[in-house]
Amino acid sequence: MQYPEPIAKLIDSFMKLPGIGYKTATRLAFFTLDMEKDDVTNFAKALISAQRDLKFCSICGNITEEDPCEICQDPSRDQKTVLVVEDSKDVMSMEQMKEYHGLYHVLHGVLSPMDGKGPEDINIASLLTRLQKNEAIEEVIIATNATPEGEATAMYISRLVKPSGIKVTRLAHGLAVGSDIEYADQMTLYKAVEGRTEM
Amino acid sequence: MQYPEPIAKLIDSFMKLPGIGYKTATRLAFFTLDMEKDDVTNFAKALISAQRDLKFCSICGNITEEDPCEICQDPSRDQKTVLVVEDSKDVMSMEQMKEYHGLYHVLHGVLSPMDGKGPEDINIASLLTRLQKNEAIEEVIIATNATPEGEATAMYISRLVKPSGIKVTRLAHGLAVGSDIEYADQMTLYKAVEGRTEM
Repeated sequence: MQYPEPIAKLIDSFMKLPGIGYKTATRLAFFTLDMEKDDVTNFAKALISAQRDLKFCSICGNITEEDPCEICQDPSRDQKTVLVVEDSKDVMSMEQMKEYHGLYHVLHGVLSPMDGKGPEDINIASLLTRLQKNEAIEEVIIATNATPEGEATAMYISRLVKPSGIKVTRLAHGLAVGSDIEYADQMTLYKAVEGRTEM
Repeated sequence: MQYPEPIAKLIDSFMKLPGIGYKTATRLAFFTLDMEKDDVTNFAKALISAQRDLKFCSICGNITEEDPCEICQDPSRDQKTVLVVEDSKDVMSMEQMKEYHGLYHVLHGVLSPMDGKGPEDINIASLLTRLQKNEAIEEVIIATNATPEGEATAMYISRLVKPSGIKVTRLAHGLAVGSDIEYADQMTLYKAVEGRTEM
């Protein structure tokens, strides 16, 4: 026996999402049956609208409703600094910190030979063009994740940008604030010792 | 800074689902941006259709596209037995076992005084009417979950049905097949000893 078709289709759709298997998809599908009709309609509309109405900023590559994006259009932001991140969620994390006031560049991925992802698959070319065209930029902060792929991507970009005389920096690695040395992994501890600062 | 409105709305919608917080909702929303357009359209359609096209069977209370449901309409099923479950997902689990060929009755919940759920909030009255009207029914198997609420609901239904002379049974409790006695909880172990069978 199968579930009636309308719910079976909904379960299938939920199962296309990452980390959601059959059991969770079933639970979610049944949950939506009991939701307010308006909430379900808004959910359906939001799915369609997100894909239809969002585009990537032609300057920084961040997702946006209008091109160029809000940040690229804002003259009050520090035009001398560009922070390079892997994806749009990282832009949001940085913005929530509220202490960075420069510009961004979103790569939409990292170099990953294992997955067949080379420099032409991520937004590196547009970063280089941007740096060439815009003489105001004095520093590129590379904020890719502290994974092997993130590190390799940081190294790759750094080598391409440095010859132009623009300063290239990388986010500091070390112990997370509030964390225990006892539970830190060896690489983190090594980075913390290596990058120690004078008090 | 906020995410652009289309994605912010989608994140809000995902957050209405059970067990999905802000971080997961964001991850899912961004994932849908990269999905095939058809998949997203189907997802949106399935959400709307599930709520619009499904109803509850007027006999057993199971979700169905047509009323009465497939099982209630099927003359080849054993008309003498009704298995009472908490929700439609339990019907599916029983059907997947393939060894039960009787009818069902879906309560859509359990008695739970803590949540203000009394007998009138679940499908008990319809079960009693059904048993009165249909003289073919000889046994009611109560398959509510083995939780305090499930047990209380089983007891309540059993007291109402027994006087009519219909046999009332409850699913067996004991060790799960393939499980270790070492890891079984005390209540399960107690039920396993109490319900031991002769070899």
